[in-house]
Amino acid sequence: MSLYAELADRLREHIEHGFYKPGDKLPSVRQLATEHGVSISTVQEAYRTLETERLVEAKPKSGYFVPSQPHNDNLPHTSRPPQRPLDVSQWEQVLNLLSNRPANTRIQLQHAAPDMTVSTLTPLLKSLSDLHRQHPDWGLGYGDIRGHIELREQLSRLAVASGCQLHHDDVVVTSGCQEALSVCLRAVSAPGDIIAIESPCFYGAMQAIKAANLKALEIPTHPEHGISLEALQLALDQWPIKAILVTPTANNPLGYVMPEDKKQALYKLAQEYDIAIIEDDIYGDLTYEFPRPRAIKAFDEDGRVLLCSSFSKTVAPGMRVGWIAAGRYRDQVTHIKYVSSSMCPTLSQIALAKFLRLGGYDRHIRKIRNTYATSRDQLLQAIKIHLPNATRVTCPAGGFVLWVEFPPEVDTTKLTEQAQEHGVAIASGSLFSATGKYRSCCRLNYSDQTAELRTEGIKIIAQLIKAEHPNLF
Amino acid sequence: MSLYAELADRLREHIEHGFYKPGDKLPSVRQLATEHGVSISTVQEAYRTLETERLVEAKPKSGYFVPSQPHNDNLPHTSRPPQRPLDVSQWEQVLNLLSNRPANTRIQLQHAAPDMTVSTLTPLLKSLSDLHRQHPDWGLGYGDIRGHIELREQLSRLAVASGCQLHHDDVVVTSGCQEALSVCLRAVSAPGDIIAIESPCFYGAMQAIKAANLKALEIPTHPEHGISLEALQLALDQWPIKAILVTPTANNPLGYVMPEDKKQALYKLAQEYDIAIIEDDIYGDLTYEFPRPRAIKAFDEDGRVLLCSSFSKTVAPGMRVGWIAAGRYRDQVTHIKYVSSSMCPTLSQIALAKFLRLGGYDRHIRKIRNTYATSRDQLLQAIKIHLPNATRVTCPAGGFVLWVEFPPEVDTTKLTEQAQEHGVAIASGSLFSATGKYRSCCRLNYSDQTAELRTEGIKIIAQLIKAEHPNLF
Ligand SMILES: Cc1ncc(COP(=O)(O)O)c(C=O)c1O
Ligand SMILES: Cc1ncc(COP(=O)(O)O)c(C=O)c1O
Repeated sequence: MSLYAELADRLREHIEHGFYKPGDKLPSVRQLATEHGVSISTVQEAYRTLETERLVEAKPKSGYFVPSQPHNDNLPHTSRPPQRPLDVSQWEQVLNLLSNRPANTRIQLQHAAPDMTVSTLTPLLKSLSDLHRQHPDWGLGYGDIRGHIELREQLSRLAVASGCQLHHDDVVVTSGCQEALSVCLRAVSAPGDIIAIESPCFYGAMQAIKAANLKALEIPTHPEHGISLEALQLALDQWPIKAILVTPTANNPLGYVMPEDKKQALYKLAQEYDIAIIEDDIYGDLTYEFPRPRAIKAFDEDGRVLLCSSFSKTVAPGMRVGWIAAGRYRDQVTHIKYVSSSMCPTLSQIALAKFLRLGGYDRHIRKIRNTYATSRDQLLQAIKIHLPNATRVTCPAGGFVLWVEFPPEVDTTKLTEQAQEHGVAIASGSLFSATGKYRSCCRLNYSDQTAELRTEGIKIIAQLIKAEHPNLF
Repeated sequence: MSLYAELADRLREHIEHGFYKPGDKLPSVRQLATEHGVSISTVQEAYRTLETERLVEAKPKSGYFVPSQPHNDNLPHTSRPPQRPLDVSQWEQVLNLLSNRPANTRIQLQHAAPDMTVSTLTPLLKSLSDLHRQHPDWGLGYGDIRGHIELREQLSRLAVASGCQLHHDDVVVTSGCQEALSVCLRAVSAPGDIIAIESPCFYGAMQAIKAANLKALEIPTHPEHGISLEALQLALDQWPIKAILVTPTANNPLGYVMPEDKKQALYKLAQEYDIAIIEDDIYGDLTYEFPRPRAIKAFDEDGRVLLCSSFSKTVAPGMRVGWIAAGRYRDQVTHIKYVSSSMCPTLSQIALAKFLRLGGYDRHIRKIRNTYATSRDQLLQAIKIHLPNATRVTCPAGGFVLWVEFPPEVDTTKLTEQAQEHGVAIASGSLFSATGKYRSCCRLNYSDQTAELRTEGIKIIAQLIKAEHPNLF
């Protein structure tokens, strides 16, 4: 390898691993030449290589920088799902994903679990442990079916950040956001009804649609602004849609935040056609922008928005604590939540209420939000460097998953299997379609591993693609 | 008050409070005379009074005894529900019951929560607290959607006691038995289908029927042997019933254990008409007879029985850990359980698995089974003494609830309200009917209070009835 290529490799590695962060100034040409004992022109050649890879940019009179915003000319296409209500399939694929045990996986880019090793979770775990030691009896009996009052109070306080005015009686605690979505779907619709959804869409929401004997109508969705209101309106004119289910703030799997005026327009559309909105806000507190954007629920004048969320992405999914603010559907939601699983465990609710009350939650969010933003940039760099040039990818505005669209000849169902054999777990695109589309897409998680491992995972994926499609590189 | 009446009062109190237990020999006439400084004939007169009250019985040549078996000539009538499929109502009543806060209640005969103050629960609580301290991270991530493997292994071991051969892969862990019932109903039926149920029936099961858009067909039920197979067969001939939902072992609210040959006959009937049986075994381990009777699932040759249970009655409802052994419906059950609430919290499952593995569960059951049997007899005595003579009552063979049938002029909906004003909570009969029947019945819980408090509660109820219907006394 030539000297300049060696140096470029080294710099590339530093950038990928986050040693140099987006926006950082890189060492000057002179500095590097001295440091590595090479000529000025060798360093210049290395920098030019990285420049064509878009890993560094030259600013006139200032030197070289890591680009501060990964640029977006390689966004995935707006989705074009079939424009009619369909039964949801893909349960076998989802089951497969859910059953994937960590034992087989060294690099975990598949499961959307948050980083749970951060120290800001310690106060929560400590108080949970204290509660179990000091007040084990609090956890024994049946609790309030709407959820513990202290937690509901804290949740209504928390809702202020997303622009919502909630009374604690508006809130029903659930066993995670999955139960929240299932309950809301059943509350607003009857078997056979049609639910409009984003495309791609979180598989758990679609499976809940299936289990409630509903039909899914996937609406074209832009990777940066969300569900197409034009397409939605056309669908509303054509079909008797009962509700729209969206994840507008830090979407899973696309990562976008729907602009506020669009949220408002979506609400107006729902009002015009008199349908309900089920708003999944599970990643809402994890937007990189601060203060967090408002939820659609913030614009709700007549109680037609059912806000669903949980602590599964912000804190830990194992707590299984979620909630619903169901507006005018509160009574139906209370009924269905009760028959669905009765009450939720009390001590987790109390511990979370305390975590919120004492500011531990805010501190935790502030910290991991930044961690995820950094990890996003690292992962985007690794993708840009190693995956085929024609690869398209979203640049999430929050959360910790992103969506990759490979050239059409790449089959991610096959790729997922191959990667798994190499200990790399990814979520194949077909999981996020009601009918198994997005076969050249996949979702990658960047929450709970090191930049090194993620980069290694991307390299393995790149090699697997190269073996089948050398022409792509 | 005359001397003999005073002495009778005192003895009555001792019997009621369990100082003398069913089967116990009472002090001899001579002994009592000396002890209380009264004449032989006074003691004889006191014993005769108690004899007519059936509180004591004379055995020739042996003296006086507390009757060992409360006798059953005052059983409630076999129920006669309307013989057609109906929509379930009563949600407001159920919600009312569920929302009743302990603050307003001094004597709790309403909620079917077990005794959670017994020392045999200590090892479980200790290990739960240890897990939270030593391995908080085990509880954080998403776990196995079918439930933790250690718990499923222990559950299949436990099932042997009820005659069932289960592999751990046959078991799906749920958020309590409520979720188990809801999931099973949705797995075996489609909206509009008819489910045959006992009458009276646990309200949560009926509300799950309602929420799944099913119809309930209540079948006449004998208070000691359970659902009438003759009536069930007639109904099966007449209606396209999809499944039978029964609680055959220590029924809630009647308390009976269906005899084994009848369980077998019920299974054969289901086979003949090719329908599923949802068997709620939540109280099954709490029968006073040991070893516990077999479940219907024990006779299941072709996987048509879906066994549902939880630790809510045997251990503590707040743990929210239940399970399903769904036979041939396992795959549908897994799907619906996943969409319904995703996974169950991991640490509770591990702690319960350990409790089972180390024998703590068996020890606990042995202990509380006896406690409940004693409490049943005490409560039956108190009922016999204080409530109107024409009151009918079941004599449970397990669990900790019994069913009272007052003369028809007593309205338990009203009585429940009045009793609540006096700090006594009872469950009115209409909760246990799909259509608000059993208005002269109520369910009483005898698990978690002292005999004194229960007797006091019964006395208050008696006074309330007396005020409205003096002729009944
Ligand atoms: C968008 C979205 N909604 C809901 C859920 C389910 O959340 P929970 O684990 O709280 O049930 C998930 C989890 O993956 C999700 O990504
Ligand atoms: C017969 C019966 N089945 C099911 C349940 C619900 O049990 P869990 O609290 O485990 O959800 C109850 C609780 O009252 C019950 O009595």
